[in-house]
Formats: sequence, C-alpha cells, structure tokens
Amino acid sequence: MTPAGLIYVGTFIDAPTHEALRVRTNHLCIVDGKGRIVLLHPLPEGTTDDVEKIKTFVAEEHRGLDVLLMKEWEFICPGMIDCHNHAPQYHQIGTATDYTLFNWLFNVTFPNEAKCRDLDYARDLYTKLVRRLLRNGTTSVQFFATNDIEPTKLLVDICAEHGLRAFVGLVTADRDSPDYYIQTTEEALSLTESFIQWTLAHPSGRDKLGEQDALVHPVITPRFVPTCTLPLLHGLGGLAAKYDVRVQSHAAETVDQVLRVKALHPTIGGGRDVAIFESCALLTGRTTLAHGTHLRDYEVRRMAEVGAAVSACPIANILHSRAVVPAPRYKALGLKVGLGTDIAGGYSASMLGPLRMAVVDDRTDSFVKVAREDMPLEEYPDPDPKTEWPVGHVWAYHIATVGGAEALGIAEHAGTIDVGKHFDAVLVDGNREDQAYEYWPAETKEIRFERWINTGDDRNVRGVWVRGAQVVWKE
Amino acid sequence: MTPAGLIYVGTFIDAPTHEALRVRTNHLCIVDGKGRIVLLHPLPEGTTDDVEKIKTFVAEEHRGLDVLLMKEWEFICPGMIDCHNHAPQYHQIGTATDYTLFNWLFNVTFPNEAKCRDLDYARDLYTKLVRRLLRNGTTSVQFFATNDIEPTKLLVDICAEHGLRAFVGLVTADRDSPDYYIQTTEEALSLTESFIQWTLAHPSGRDKLGEQDALVHPVITPRFVPTCTLPLLHGLGGLAAKYDVRVQSHAAETVDQVLRVKALHPTIGGGRDVAIFESCALLTGRTTLAHGTHLRDYEVRRMAEVGAAVSACPIANILHSRAVVPAPRYKALGLKVGLGTDIAGGYSASMLGPLRMAVVDDRTDSFVKVAREDMPLEEYPDPDPKTEWPVGHVWAYHIATVGGAEALGIAEHAGTIDVGKHFDAVLVDGNREDQAYEYWPAETKEIRFERWINTGDDRNVRGVWVRGAQVVWKE
Ligand SMILES: [Zn+2]
Ligand SMILES: [Zn+2]
Repeated sequence: MTPAGLIYVGTFIDAPTHEALRVRTNHLCIVDGKGRIVLLHPLPEGTTDDVEKIKTFVAEEHRGLDVLLMKEWEFICPGMIDCHNHAPQYHQIGTATDYTLFNWLFNVTFPNEAKCRDLDYARDLYTKLVRRLLRNGTTSVQFFATNDIEPTKLLVDICAEHGLRAFVGLVTADRDSPDYYIQTTEEALSLTESFIQWTLAHPSGRDKLGEQDALVHPVITPRFVPTCTLPLLHGLGGLAAKYDVRVQSHAAETVDQVLRVKALHPTIGGGRDVAIFESCALLTGRTTLAHGTHLRDYEVRRMAEVGAAVSACPIANILHSRAVVPAPRYKALGLKVGLGTDIAGGYSASMLGPLRMAVVDDRTDSFVKVAREDMPLEEYPDPDPKTEWPVGHVWAYHIATVGGAEALGIAEHAGTIDVGKHFDAVLVDGNREDQAYEYWPAETKEIRFERWINTGDDRNVRGVWVRGAQVVWKE
Repeated sequence: MTPAGLIYVGTFIDAPTHEALRVRTNHLCIVDGKGRIVLLHPLPEGTTDDVEKIKTFVAEEHRGLDVLLMKEWEFICPGMIDCHNHAPQYHQIGTATDYTLFNWLFNVTFPNEAKCRDLDYARDLYTKLVRRLLRNGTTSVQFFATNDIEPTKLLVDICAEHGLRAFVGLVTADRDSPDYYIQTTEEALSLTESFIQWTLAHPSGRDKLGEQDALVHPVITPRFVPTCTLPLLHGLGGLAAKYDVRVQSHAAETVDQVLRVKALHPTIGGGRDVAIFESCALLTGRTTLAHGTHLRDYEVRRMAEVGAAVSACPIANILHSRAVVPAPRYKALGLKVGLGTDIAGGYSASMLGPLRMAVVDDRTDSFVKVAREDMPLEEYPDPDPKTEWPVGHVWAYHIATVGGAEALGIAEHAGTIDVGKHFDAVLVDGNREDQAYEYWPAETKEIRFERWINTGDDRNVRGVWVRGAQVVWKE
C-alpha cells in the first residue's frame, strides 16, 4: 500500500473538540506522496466542480495530481481508531454474549485463540478481520493477538499488506491459564522480545516512507494481572523501558476480575491493577488499559499523571462487566480516553457500535446516579442537555477519533483532518442505493453526519485511506 | 398482496418461550392460499433436496404448490413485531437524539408531524418507511400517525398496499400543544370515530380473505395525558367500548412527563398515567402503553389484571428517558411486554436495534440495583448467567415476536411458526456476499441465529412474508 498524492474537493467533517463538529464545505485538500495533508483551504466561489479551475488554484508541483470531486451527499471524515481489539476472537464475534468473564475465557475464548497456531486458519481469520475493519472505516487498531509468535507475526504482515495502521501485541500469560495455552515466564519474555525486534525491523512503514512512524508497531501485552506472575510483569516492564514501545493490558474490568486481583496481590496498592502495573514499570506514558470501568478516581488521576490511557469498550462493558466507563468524568480528571470494539467481548466490528454505545453508557451513568442517590422523582429535574448530557454523537465521535489518537500516541498524525497530519480518512456517501436509511436532499451536512453515525453502516463507506494510501474503494 | 400457497423446506427457528430457541431442521412447512400454516413436519431422511420425493410426502391437494428449498445457511424465523412506531417521525430518525422529551416534541417532532398534511410528502415518507420496515424483517407494526385524518388514512392504504400487518392510530391532542397542531375536543373525537369507521370498512384484509382478522386495524390514540383533556380521554374511552378496538398511548415515560401528569391531575390515583387511563375507560385488555419505564409494581399488576400491555422501547428509553423497562420483572408480575422501535425516539428502523438494546437494558438494570444497594464490590458475587442474566438474545427475540403478538392481541396468528398460525416469516440468509459479518461453515444453527441477531442486518433478509403473502424477495 503506497500513498498516492491526490486532491480532494468537497466537505470535510471532524471533531477536534468534543463540543462541536467542524464542518468545512467547498474545501480543497491536497495530500502528498507521503500521505500527508499539505493544504486544506476553502475553494474560491464557483470552482467547486471545475477541475481545471481548481488546478490553477494549487501550487505547480501538485497540478499533476488527480482530483476527487465529492458529490453533494458525500463527505470526508477522519478514520476511526479502535484502541482494543482481540484479533483471534473475531471468529466468535456476535456469539457467547451471555457468559461471565472467566467462564467466557476458559470455555470459549482460549480455545479459539489457541486455534490460531494453525497458520492457515489464522491467515484466513486475520485477513477477513482486517478487511472488515477497513471496510467499516477503521484506520488504526490496537490488537491483542495470541500467546504464539508465528500467528502474531502473521497479523503484522496482514495489517501491513492491507495498509491498516496497527499496534500488535503478542499476548503473555504464565499462570492460571489452561495447560494448552500457557507460557513459562522465560518463554513469555523471550517471545515478547523476539516479537518486538522482528516488528521494529518489519519492512512496512518506516523504511518505505523514510518517516519516523511505522505503519505497524509492537506492543507489550500482558493479558491481565490474573494470568501473569510478578516476575513476568517485571520482565515486561524492563522490555518496555529497553525498547520504549507501547504497553497494553486490561484493568478494573469486571467485579470477578477485580476481586481476583485483590486476592492475588493484596499488598500491592491494595491489590489494584493500576498499582500493580506501576510497581512493575508497566504504567507509562505509552500504556493503554482496556475497560477501566471500576477505576477509582485516585487511579484515574495517577494514570493521567503518567500519561497512560483507558480504552473504553462500551459494548463489552455492558455485556460482560455490567458497568460503564464514565468517560466525561475520566476526561475531566485529565485521562486520555479512546474507544475500542473489544472484539469479541463486544459484538460490533464497526466502531459505530461502541461509538453509539458510548452515548448509551453516558445516559445510563446518569440514571445510575439517580438510583444511587435515591432522590425522589419530584426533586430530580430534567437535565439541561448542554451540560448534563455531554456525550452525544459528537462527543463519542471525538473520542473515537481524537481520543483514540491521543490514547495511542498518534495524535500528531491522526484523529482530525489537518495540515501536517496523515490522511487517515473515510469518504462517506449518504446516498447509496442499498443503504440502511433514507436520503433527504434538504438536510444540512451536520444532520447527514449525525444520521450516518446513528443509522448508517459500512454500506455508506465509499473510500478509506490510511496514511494517504487508498485501502477501500467502491464505485 | 395476496397469499400464495407454498411449501417451505429447511430450518425453522423460533422462540415460543423466553428460555430457549426451538430449532427444527429438515422440516417441511405447508402454507395454504389463505396464508395459514397447515403442516409443519420433519422430512423423512434423504428427501431434503429432492422436490419430487417431498411432493409424495404431502397431501394431494398441496402437490401443486411450489417448493422453496432453503440452503444450508438459510433459516426461516417469525417476523418481528414493532409495538410502537411514530410513522411521521421517520423523517427525523437518527437525528435529534440529544433532546429531552418536551423540547424534542415542540422543537423537532410536532413540526415534522404537521408536515404530513402535505399528502405528497406523507405518501413518500410513509411508503419509504413501510418498505424499510418490511425489508428489515418486521411483519406487524402498531403506528401512531398524526392528528390529521387524510394522511392517517393514507398510512392505512400504504400498509395494505405493501402487505404490512398494521395497527394505525389517528393521534389526538386538545391541550398543551402548539397552535398549528392541536384539535378541539369535538374534532378529536369525531375524527377518531370517522377514522375507526373508515378503517374497519377498509377493503384490505378482512373481506379479501374472508377471515375475521383484518390486515390493518384502527387504534384509539390519545398521544399522552399531558396533551389530552379529561373530556377527550372520557370520550375516547366511550369509542373504545363502542367499537371494541385497540387503544394505545404513552405512560410513565420520562421524569418530566411523570411530573407533568401529576401536576395536571393530582387527585386521580395520585396523578399517575395508569389510573387516569383507567378512570376514562381506556385501560382495557386491548390497550398498549408505550415505555412504562417508571411504572410502579402496583400499576404493573393492575395492567396485567385487565390484560393491558407495555411496549418497551429500549433505545428511546435510554436516550430520552434515561431509564429501562425491567422486562423480566414486569413479565414475572404477569404483564404482557412487547418491543418497539419507537421511531423516532429510537434511531433504529430495524427491530434488531431495540432487541439488542433490550439485552443492554437488562444488564444495566442489574448494575442499577448494585448501585442502589450500595453493596461493597467484595460482597457482590458474579451472577449466575442462567438465573441472573435472563435477558439474552433469545429472551429479547421472544419478546420481539411472541411478546409483541401477545401485546397486540394477535398471538393466535403470529409470533411463532406453528400450524394454525399465519405465515408471518423472515427468510434469513447467513451467507450473502455483501453481509456485515463472516460466514463460518461449521457453525450450528443456533449460533448462526445468534450471529444474525447480534451482528447481522437487513442484508441477510432474503424474503419476508406476511399472512403468507411474499412482501420482500431478493435473489
Ligand atoms: Zn480485552
Ligand atoms: Zn412514542
């Protein structure tokens, strides 16, 4: 996948803040041969659909580029960033949603993950997954792969081949796992180091463009505290420092998991995930912890201090944790918050699923507060939507794009459509014959965007670009 | 739309109880020329795909019928029943989800409803809606139309023309509504009576098949207590008795609505919706009240006693009510519970939306209870999924089919695939090229069903029949 310079003309919609969409109509966007946005500017009146006039408007060096003229019902918005996704669990997506966490792991999930040792199986599964994610408008993903190195390398190859910006982790687990799916501490550490070295040297990304940023990155990935011994966690912390790479794990996910961690390590910070990770040098400015539904405020503050992030996974949180991430509260405490599909704890392979559920979570959180306070109905006023329901679709789209970019440390490249960033973008067509909702010609761009977010799907995704390379295209 | 007799051969999946799916593979189903299921029987071994052998197995009188042989990845299940849907609001679906109820009504909804006086506008809107609902696998719908009789009649015509089983209400409101969208008490009553008479005499349904049950039925429809005077409600109660037709309204929907009702009628049963409707003879065995999130147990018991039902609208309840219908609790108290899209309080035109959200509601309800009880995390055990998470996808599909049929009084005709019922059915194809999820050949029928419910959409709906008439077909 090589970036192709292109001139895009039409409507650009993004959410640089959580408060409002930024809608730029009749704009021209030039993407260079390295996939970077080099110009984004209003077109002079009247030049909207006249390619020759548009070309006179751009610098000489860009006049040779092709021009993509958006139709009236099309717009370009930033690709979505999936901060938490278990690639080997894709086979079980949409099923087994009625299990509690540990039953789900041992009965459904570990057997599915171990199957990826069959590389033909893994290749088929991962290829389908990566294509599906791109087609859904996801441009960056942070993956948990499996305990095995060969299928995990395969996932890196497949992401690179398809042009998906990816953060891939070889999962480690040296305790309390089934016999067929466990590593020794030494294996876990040496596999992790080999995988880091191999991925850092991967021919995708860095070399090809001569840029600092690779397309696919290795991530140190202890599954979660219950399946990792302290020596393993300490060893992984050492590797995180040695290679300065990202770290991901799970934290404060479900009641049973929180209780298990407390029973295992009662003396480390009260037996809490965040303290345990920090004691092993795994809580860094490049750490993302999935879920975090049961985090206490002091933990949120500490994570914010060191620059760690939470991947909120609203669908999985509801289904398996029976809890929500109070995203506005965490953001207000300074924490970086991204969104994840959590395939396959969550059943949506499209980020529109968790995005919509983030709105649900917020409404839910507010009635949890009502119940908690046991306030008589009469004393509970209807909220002011401007201040008390902050998580609407714009808020959720902001954390699905900018929030994810901040969480994964790629905010300088992705999350909005801005000069200097990579062109990680989705062309949405709101008027396709087969789409899931109606097209009404009189609507504003803002409402078209909202309608796609709430009622649309991949059928509206006409094109997807990652770092300027076209990875999905439909006529 | 005329029923065509047909022999269906393959897999039939339904949920006659909330506890388990009923999966019948290699079955043969004969639907007669009146759209009734006259036989449903296992095929003898080996006849699965041999039409001639199948024909020798059926009675002489049915041998002339065409045979539809399902593929291995196809199954037939009951069409879903949408108990609450505002047809004129379809224009705003997926938008304006961040409003509170009264702001939403006055600023967005009433203006949209009034637009339906333009019959060309209404025809276009209602035709698109009815086609969309059928295409999504919905076979019966209870509609709120508008305050105006001509567009409401048009909705009846369009449902009949497209073969949708429908319950249509002319909405009444004689107080606290905008000047441009209000009736006098006399107008509201006389329009309602005219509409009932006109719809009962409508050429669709009853006459055509010589059956007792019409395809389209009138429903007495006070919008909700806040916009109806007591004389209007009493008058409508009289019409309900005179014509023995169904009644629908809203009840116990949001905090602001509950407070408004209490302020209006403090002396009638404590100013509660259910008592007010009952005092006006509007709480009958043919009444459906939408939402009911804030019902108290004594109200649920009273509704159950008289045979009334609640239409739970999980998406709208979360977005606008910040509350859930505790469906298992209501069911355990004997209440009939159906599901509704609540277009456009809800943003899904497919019943799969509220169905999935009903599962979310249940998980949410259980953590509301945790919060309410303020139980320390350590004392809160992980629930047993068999007893404590009763609303999985099977439970939700049960209320989307059987629950809806009971709520709308059509359980003898619809809700399951059984001999003697109408063939209201959806042919689901789990292996279409353009579908939203992957097809894995080795899966069980149960998992294929679960996968469609959780990750599929209208792309998998290959055929839809209402009362035996084919209303959707894709090659
Ligand atoms: Zn996870
Ligand atoms: Zn309603």
